[in-house]
Amino acid sequence: MGMYDVDTTGIREEKKPMSISYHMPTRVLSGVGCVMSHAALLQEYGKRAFIVTGSQSARTSGALRDVIGALEENDLSWVLFDKVEANPSIETVREASVLGRENGVDFVMGIGGGSPMDAAKAIAALLTNNLDDHSLFAGSYPVAVPPILCVPTTAGTGSEVTPYAILTDHASGTKRNMGGVELFPRLAFLDASYMKSLPWTVTINTAVDALSHALEGWLAVRGNALSEPFALTGIREMVHALNELAVLKTRGTAAQEIPFDLRERALHGSMFGGMTIAQTGTTVLHAMGYCLTMDRNIDHGLANGLLMPGYLRFLSRRMPDRMKQLEALLGLEGLDDFSQFLLSLFDAPESLPLHTCEAYADTAIQARNVANTPVPVAREDLAQIFCETRVPKQVVSH
Amino acid sequence: MGMYDVDTTGIREEKKPMSISYHMPTRVLSGVGCVMSHAALLQEYGKRAFIVTGSQSARTSGALRDVIGALEENDLSWVLFDKVEANPSIETVREASVLGRENGVDFVMGIGGGSPMDAAKAIAALLTNNLDDHSLFAGSYPVAVPPILCVPTTAGTGSEVTPYAILTDHASGTKRNMGGVELFPRLAFLDASYMKSLPWTVTINTAVDALSHALEGWLAVRGNALSEPFALTGIREMVHALNELAVLKTRGTAAQEIPFDLRERALHGSMFGGMTIAQTGTTVLHAMGYCLTMDRNIDHGLANGLLMPGYLRFLSRRMPDRMKQLEALLGLEGLDDFSQFLLSLFDAPESLPLHTCEAYADTAIQARNVANTPVPVAREDLAQIFCETRVPKQVVSH
Repeated sequence: MGMYDVDTTGIREEKKPMSISYHMPTRVLSGVGCVMSHAALLQEYGKRAFIVTGSQSARTSGALRDVIGALEENDLSWVLFDKVEANPSIETVREASVLGRENGVDFVMGIGGGSPMDAAKAIAALLTNNLDDHSLFAGSYPVAVPPILCVPTTAGTGSEVTPYAILTDHASGTKRNMGGVELFPRLAFLDASYMKSLPWTVTINTAVDALSHALEGWLAVRGNALSEPFALTGIREMVHALNELAVLKTRGTAAQEIPFDLRERALHGSMFGGMTIAQTGTTVLHAMGYCLTMDRNIDHGLANGLLMPGYLRFLSRRMPDRMKQLEALLGLEGLDDFSQFLLSLFDAPESLPLHTCEAYADTAIQARNVANTPVPVAREDLAQIFCETRVPKQVVSH
Repeated sequence: MGMYDVDTTGIREEKKPMSISYHMPTRVLSGVGCVMSHAALLQEYGKRAFIVTGSQSARTSGALRDVIGALEENDLSWVLFDKVEANPSIETVREASVLGRENGVDFVMGIGGGSPMDAAKAIAALLTNNLDDHSLFAGSYPVAVPPILCVPTTAGTGSEVTPYAILTDHASGTKRNMGGVELFPRLAFLDASYMKSLPWTVTINTAVDALSHALEGWLAVRGNALSEPFALTGIREMVHALNELAVLKTRGTAAQEIPFDLRERALHGSMFGGMTIAQTGTTVLHAMGYCLTMDRNIDHGLANGLLMPGYLRFLSRRMPDRMKQLEALLGLEGLDDFSQFLLSLFDAPESLPLHTCEAYADTAIQARNVANTPVPVAREDLAQIFCETRVPKQVVSH
């Protein structure tokens, strides 16, 4: 399998006639109990599964129980690695791949939020390939990558339908992105009942992450006529879901009482967000969010949500017509109202010190997805957006 | 590869928890010159290509020249079968597969409208499998099907992104559908410049075919939350394209002067129509259209367009709320206006004799996609729709 042309540089190749592409080969199954009702499909992927999860959500959601049940029902054996942390590191996926190799696993099942699913992809590449860090992030591998299957337990990341994995590189202190066609999951099982036990904060933050994917994909330089329907569907569904969630939260509804239909709608919306960025990649907003996550341990979805109002204001100044078009498409009263609404979802009263804003801008401006942002972006623009952004009170000092 | 569950029966499995699915693994490349600019990709599929086309459009469009150029640039050899007729027969695909086997081809490239692309899929299955007619239509094959690549030269069929092929069975006098995951093309090259030489009739009829796919997919029992965005995109784009085309035609614009952007928009809309029915299948409208095509040699897209007004009227009586929803989604003035508009595109003054309507209804009511129609359908309903339908003056007597 050759090098895949959905790269993450966001730079269109201008030398040859421009062409656009669509590719998302993952087979998606959705519905209550879909893991068990399609258990027989697992036989197609080998005899021994490598289950990759974090320590918690795969168990509390019931997804791990269903996956093990589906495997055992088909006489497939399995090995569990349940030590994927939030923002998984290169070290973690290397440790897991050693365990997987020792046990002769045939395929990888990632269960959880974005972290375990992303880790599952990197682990799969390492199971059959000896790769230094540089080669790991190349996205194209000498030996075929074993099948990857995903079971999301949050509605946000969309990783179940993307060819991307994001790992934390502690050596460089950055988040790094790998992307290649072999990292597309073969199968994704979407069962919104796994989201029943998610608390409010996770529910909101992951929904904002999904919105961010769809919105950035709509904005992206690499967005086009083939990706736009996915982006608009993702935006529409996630704006709807966030509005419904906000109403329930204001009423004091317990997170466990969030209706199944709303959970499922958000799960499908997040899938469309993933299908969007699988084509378009993300913009500088994601790079900026990584600064907040790496330096202040702010959740990925929350980080994007906190930065979104400033980012949208910035874009409205630079390309007012296109942003008006977005408002019209979404039936929004206006982007300011939307930003107010977004901020009402978070408890984020603090400003960032100027020197911090400058330092974050220095980092974010170097990201490859700067070139995928629909207007030229300078370091000063990013510093200003950081300065306009409010963040949660810092709990962990450093 | 196991049996694929996008069957064509339209009957949901009610015994287990309902799940819905999405799968469309074809990689799509779109843009002027996309065949040549991605020529190197062809190396992934083998050393010798089997080019499958009709006698005309692949040549006049320039697509055949580009495909041969792309193959030769990569030192790949090729064999040409250019005898696919409209509504290709089982005999034709068998004849072609013998030629392909004799020449040791590795992959199949279908160039043309729906007929050559559908034929390419059936031929691919026959290249590696010895199949009687029953097994050919099973959609699942003992030996892996060679890679299928498609280059559409009309904007209508969507076959480049579906796992279906429709063949004419002269023995039974019917059109028969095969569908299986291995029949999804690996690659589809969408270059709207190949449509430049299409005459008005083909342009309109194929656009109506694409609209029919999207509309039927939206209506289908098997339509769901994962397919609806594709259906709505397809409907919206094809309604837009047909309106623009009608304006140009009324002004006396030559078909060769249809703007490229409009051609490309219709091509993308027809792709979304194909992506829709790849998930949902079609409804009884398609089965009814086949009667007009088989018995009166009426073009497939035209047949669906002629029947659409009566079909929509029937559905409006049976499920008025859902059809109102469709009008609202589409910004249509009303389905009657839309039907008037559609009929204005065709020259179809004749009624069908009552006994003919009855005979067609007898045939169509036996089709599997009756069960995929959103309301119960009786033979009498179909006879009435046929009776309300006007068709072109018959040129060929029989």
